Amino acid sequence: MKLAKTYAFIKKDLSVIEDALEKTVHADQPVLHEASIQLLKAGGKRLRPVFVVLASKFGEYNLDHIKNVASSLELIHMASLVHDDVIDDSNMRRGKPTVKANWDNQVAMLTGDYIFAKALQQFTDINKPRAHQILAKTMMELTVGEIEQIKDKYNLQQNLRTYLRRIKRKTALLISSSCQLGAIVANTDKHTEKVLFRYGYYMGMSYQIIDDILDFTASEKELGKPAGSDLIQGNITLPVLYALENDYIKKDLEKAFENKHEVTPERMRPIIEQIANSDAISQARTVSDLYLRKAYDSLELLPANQAKDALARIANYIGNRKL
Amino acid sequence: MKLAKTYAFIKKDLSVIEDALEKTVHADQPVLHEASIQLLKAGGKRLRPVFVVLASKFGEYNLDHIKNVASSLELIHMASLVHDDVIDDSNMRRGKPTVKANWDNQVAMLTGDYIFAKALQQFTDINKPRAHQILAKTMMELTVGEIEQIKDKYNLQQNLRTYLRRIKRKTALLISSSCQLGAIVANTDKHTEKVLFRYGYYMGMSYQIIDDILDFTASEKELGKPAGSDLIQGNITLPVLYALENDYIKKDLEKAFENKHEVTPERMRPIIEQIANSDAISQARTVSDLYLRKAYDSLELLPANQAKDALARIANYIGNRKL
Repeated sequence: MKLAKTYAFIKKDLSVIEDALEKTVHADQPVLHEASIQLLKAGGKRLRPVFVVLASKFGEYNLDHIKNVASSLELIHMASLVHDDVIDDSNMRRGKPTVKANWDNQVAMLTGDYIFAKALQQFTDINKPRAHQILAKTMMELTVGEIEQIKDKYNLQQNLRTYLRRIKRKTALLISSSCQLGAIVANTDKHTEKVLFRYGYYMGMSYQIIDDILDFTASEKELGKPAGSDLIQGNITLPVLYALENDYIKKDLEKAFENKHEVTPERMRPIIEQIANSDAISQARTVSDLYLRKAYDSLELLPANQAKDALARIANYIGNRKL
Repeated sequence: MKLAKTYAFIKKDLSVIEDALEKTVHADQPVLHEASIQLLKAGGKRLRPVFVVLASKFGEYNLDHIKNVASSLELIHMASLVHDDVIDDSNMRRGKPTVKANWDNQVAMLTGDYIFAKALQQFTDINKPRAHQILAKTMMELTVGEIEQIKDKYNLQQNLRTYLRRIKRKTALLISSSCQLGAIVANTDKHTEKVLFRYGYYMGMSYQIIDDILDFTASEKELGKPAGSDLIQGNITLPVLYALENDYIKKDLEKAFENKHEVTPERMRPIIEQIANSDAISQARTVSDLYLRKAYDSLELLPANQAKDALARIANYIGNRKL
């Protein structure tokens, strides 16, 4: 099943949002324009807009407002990816060269800044201080998550708690905020807003864990970048944490990380394969499934409607996704 | 005369804002905390808070709101400096090592992102969509100004118009927005708001031109970085544009810029001295004075009060500043 099929009934609304996104990143400055458009065209699941739209279906649905919130959140996501690629020194994303690869780190930093500013501009006609507070807080947590990721690079001493806190900041909060802001802009009652926030949080956690699993189990073609890229960049994800419980893998990894300047794709390949074929994958999947279960459970507190069904289908899709 | 003397009557308010700034940049994450605090302690004129406070004196003065607007604008300024230092590869600012020098470019990028997000958070309780629009637009223009600066580096073919447009985006708009937002948050009438905006714009233009002059005429000790740093980094400022009208300087500069990787402080020193001793300095000063005159003139449209006197004194200070 394709992801888009899970929410076919909001297809038209999403294409309105896509148009808004394209109009928004338009820049008179050629480099910024080209970099932003390229980024937009590189695709992506537009998961955050989907969550905004579906969440707002539980209240007073006004596409004009929702459009701005949805595109704003997608832009923040895009901007954070651009800065992420600078930090991880990534040249490929979704099978396409990154902004930092096509230009350089400085242009990538400014393209990110520009898209952040555009995201804020999109959000300005939402006349709800609480919505602005949530957006600013989410952006701040995103940054803290990023810096924690840098700090924890190549550090094999970290534990499950560190990992979960990091992915909460890096991924889950932007998704839970998408749900929450969709609810707020549609003036749902507080209970519905809270439930949608929690659904988003659990989905975001599960989503990131599966992302971290796929980095080991999917092919280079599917990923659009070499398998095991996370580990090559020194990012210790959940599968690695479980794999470290195996003494052989632990020793190999400690040895490989002794000098991080010598961590090459060639050198890491056997370790990556070991992890991919170990129990660590199913252990990580178990944690993802726990979050997914909580996401389903939270949906039970919502009234029945098309949006609720779609949120359940998305959870199902995310849980089984191969990409 | 010291700058602080020009606005002694708001000294208490500014120390409230300083406290707010310190509280705001507090981070649980050690690197972000240290980098942000260090940046704050490195000082700076706090010109943007001063303008916010003085502008709001023309309306209903409420320090609680003004405090948030003022610290928000100073934080945006600080964040842009951090990203600026990444772009210009600067290791020193105000006589202190920069964030990128103390840590690295990645930490500097994220520290900037973090401070931007904190700036937004400070601004969220301002319940005025127009204020948010102005803030977002200003941040966007700042970024466009930065990327124009990169694009125009080492390019000797640019003209006065390119330069003025760039410093408008890079510097003047944040100062004019400080004045305008001070007015808006104090609910002044539209005319007062417009006049304050224009005063800020003219002051910002003059301020940046003088900054660009001082880069040639002040000593390394006064600047806290080597004289002529702008030119060594390839930034073509107003004094350089006028100096290029001298064929000898033009030839020397063209030769020096033939291979930008060979542009060293040693190599550039004689050219920097030539420019510092040329008519270019007084020509640039003439342009700054024109803007300063316009700033004074715009003040005439404002009612007489302590704030108006202070704005005039600041214009006078800026026009004669040696640092």
